[in-house]
Amino acid sequence: MDFSPRTLARPADDAPAAAKPVILTGDRTTGPLHLGHYAGSLKSRVALQDSHDQFLLLADAQALTDNAQDIAKVRRNVIEVALDYLAVGIDPAKSTICLQSHLPALAELSMLYLNFVTVARLERNPTIKEEIRARGFGRDIPAGFLCYPAAQAADITAFGATVVPVGADQAPMIEQTNEIVRRINALAGRPVLREASALIPATGRLPGVDGRAKMSKSGGNALSLSASPDDIRAAVRAMYTDPEHLRITDAGRVEGNVVFTYLDAFDPDTEMVADLKDHYRRGGLGDGALKKRLEAILQELLAPIRARRADFAAHPDHVLGLVREGTERAREVTADTLEEVTRALGLFRL
Amino acid sequence: MDFSPRTLARPADDAPAAAKPVILTGDRTTGPLHLGHYAGSLKSRVALQDSHDQFLLLADAQALTDNAQDIAKVRRNVIEVALDYLAVGIDPAKSTICLQSHLPALAELSMLYLNFVTVARLERNPTIKEEIRARGFGRDIPAGFLCYPAAQAADITAFGATVVPVGADQAPMIEQTNEIVRRINALAGRPVLREASALIPATGRLPGVDGRAKMSKSGGNALSLSASPDDIRAAVRAMYTDPEHLRITDAGRVEGNVVFTYLDAFDPDTEMVADLKDHYRRGGLGDGALKKRLEAILQELLAPIRARRADFAAHPDHVLGLVREGTERAREVTADTLEEVTRALGLFRL
Repeated sequence: MDFSPRTLARPADDAPAAAKPVILTGDRTTGPLHLGHYAGSLKSRVALQDSHDQFLLLADAQALTDNAQDIAKVRRNVIEVALDYLAVGIDPAKSTICLQSHLPALAELSMLYLNFVTVARLERNPTIKEEIRARGFGRDIPAGFLCYPAAQAADITAFGATVVPVGADQAPMIEQTNEIVRRINALAGRPVLREASALIPATGRLPGVDGRAKMSKSGGNALSLSASPDDIRAAVRAMYTDPEHLRITDAGRVEGNVVFTYLDAFDPDTEMVADLKDHYRRGGLGDGALKKRLEAILQELLAPIRARRADFAAHPDHVLGLVREGTERAREVTADTLEEVTRALGLFRL
Repeated sequence: MDFSPRTLARPADDAPAAAKPVILTGDRTTGPLHLGHYAGSLKSRVALQDSHDQFLLLADAQALTDNAQDIAKVRRNVIEVALDYLAVGIDPAKSTICLQSHLPALAELSMLYLNFVTVARLERNPTIKEEIRARGFGRDIPAGFLCYPAAQAADITAFGATVVPVGADQAPMIEQTNEIVRRINALAGRPVLREASALIPATGRLPGVDGRAKMSKSGGNALSLSASPDDIRAAVRAMYTDPEHLRITDAGRVEGNVVFTYLDAFDPDTEMVADLKDHYRRGGLGDGALKKRLEAILQELLAPIRARRADFAAHPDHVLGLVREGTERAREVTADTLEEVTRALGLFRL
C-alpha cells in the first residue's frame, strides 16, 4: 500500500473540475458493504473514477432518518464503509470520500429546498411511498424520513453532480431533485443548478446466497467484502440452485439458480458461462462442479479486497486522515454551491 | 449615538454566560415592525436585556417557509428589522442581534431534530394546524412550513434558551421543542439540552387602529415605528372608538374602543386612564379630547424611536457591522451546542 502524500492529492490538482462530469454516490452507514454492493455499484465506481470527478458520501445523516434509535450503529459503520471503499480500489487521489454530517452546506441547502417542495409532493414520491410501506411507518414516519428526497436533492446539487448511480427503484428521487433544480433556476432567472441523470446499472440486483431477492447482512444471506476463505466456501456450498435438480443427469433450471446469477455477475468468461448453462439445461452437469468454479472466482475476487481492507484497517489514523481530507474538499465545494444558490436567489448576504 | 467600540463589546465580556438566563426571541424579516410589536414584545425585550443574555434572531430562513416566492421582501427587511431593534433601544452591547440564515448549526440541528419528530406529530401541532388553515395551504403546504416547529426547536436549543417570549397562540411550539429536548436527553442519557418556558406577555395583542384584532402593515391598520408626526396624527384621528358615541354627552363604551386600548398600553398614568374611562362611560367626555391625549403620548413615545432609527439608517455599514458581530457570536454559541449534541448522541466526529 502506498501511504505517500501522492494518495492525498486532490483531483482538482490534476484537472480542472469543469473538465470531468461530477458523480455523486455513497452509502448509508448502517453496515459494512457486501458482494451485492460490489456487483451493483462499487465495481462501477472504481471504473468511473478515472473519467469522472467522483464524490462518495458516507451518508450518516441520511442513515439517521430511519435509524435515530440506533445511532451507535450509524457511527460504527462510518469507518467500515470507508474501509470497504478503499478495499475495492476507490483511490482517494481520484475520488473524494466525505462524511455527510460534517458538511453544513448540505443541511442548509436541505432546509432551503424544503420550502420548494410540498408535503403532498413528498408523499407522492414512489420511492418514499414504498419505503414507508416496507418499514411499516404509516403516519408515524419520522419527519426526517419524509423529507429525505429534499436532502438528497441538496446532496446531489451541492456537489454539482450530473450523474447519480442509483438502482432503478431510486429513479423517482432524481426526478424530484430535478424538479427542485428547475424551481430554483426559475426563481433565480438563470441556470444556477444543473439537472442530474440517474445512471442505472445494466445488471440487476444481486440476490442473496439463499435465492431471496435482496442480499442483506441482517437477512443472513450476504457475503461481506471481508469474508474469509472459509466463509466464501461455506456460502457457495449452501447456495440455492435448482431444488428439482436431484441427480447430475437431470435437466436443470438456470433461471432463478443463484449460482448462475453469480457466474453471470462475476465470471469474466461469458462464453464459458453460456456453455455451462446449455450443459446444465441438457443434464449431465452437477451443482458441485459449478459451485467449484464459482467459489474459485469469488476467492480470487475477494482475496485482494480482503487483504487491502485488512491493511487499511491496520492504519485507522491514515483512513481517518483520508476521510478528513475528502470532507475538507467536499466542504469547500458544497459551501461554494450554497453561496451561489443563496446569491442567485437573492437572499441577504452579510 | 455612540459609535465607539464599547457598543460592540460582547455580553460575555461583562458576565459569564451561565450567570444570566438566556432568552431567544426574534422576528421573521417580512416587514418593518410596528407599534403592535413594540407593545407586545420590543418594549419587554429592552427591559429584559439587562437581566438576561438575549439573542434576537433576524429570522430570514423561517420567513422563507411561507415566503419562498418573495425572497426580495425577506432580504429587504433584514436590515429594516435590525433598524427597528436598534431604534427601540436594543443595545448590541447587551443583546445579540444575529441573522438566522448565516448560522449553519441551526440548519444542522433542524435536520437532526426532524428525525425525532413524526409527521403526524407536526400535523397535530395546533399552531401549525391553525396557520395552515389561515394560509389556505391544505396538503400543498411547503414541507419547510410543516417542519418549522423542528427548526424553531433548533433555534431555541442552539442558544441554550430557557425563556422564549411568545404570544399565547405560540405556546404549543414551546411544548413541541421540549418534547424534542426530552427525546434527545433520553437518547443521550444525560440532560444535554434544557427545556424552555414560554414567556407570554401580560398585555394582549394590540389591535389595529381600525379596531381589527390584528395590526398589520398589509392590513393598512398599523402604525410603523418610523411613522412621521403627521402619520401618527392621522392614525389617531381615524382611530376606531365607539360608533354609538355620537354626542359628547352620550354615554360611551370603553370595551373595544381602540383609543382606550392604546391608552391602556401606552399611557403611563394608569390612574388617570381609569378616571377617563369612568368619565367616558358616564358621558361628557368627547373622543377629540381622548385622542388628543393619546396622540401626545404616541408622539412622545415614537419621536426618539424615529430619531434613533434615522440615525442608524444613515450609517448602514455600522448597522451591518453590528449584525455581523452578533452573528459571529451566535455562530460560536450555536456551533458549540451542535458539537455538544452530536457528541452526546454519539454521532461520528471527525
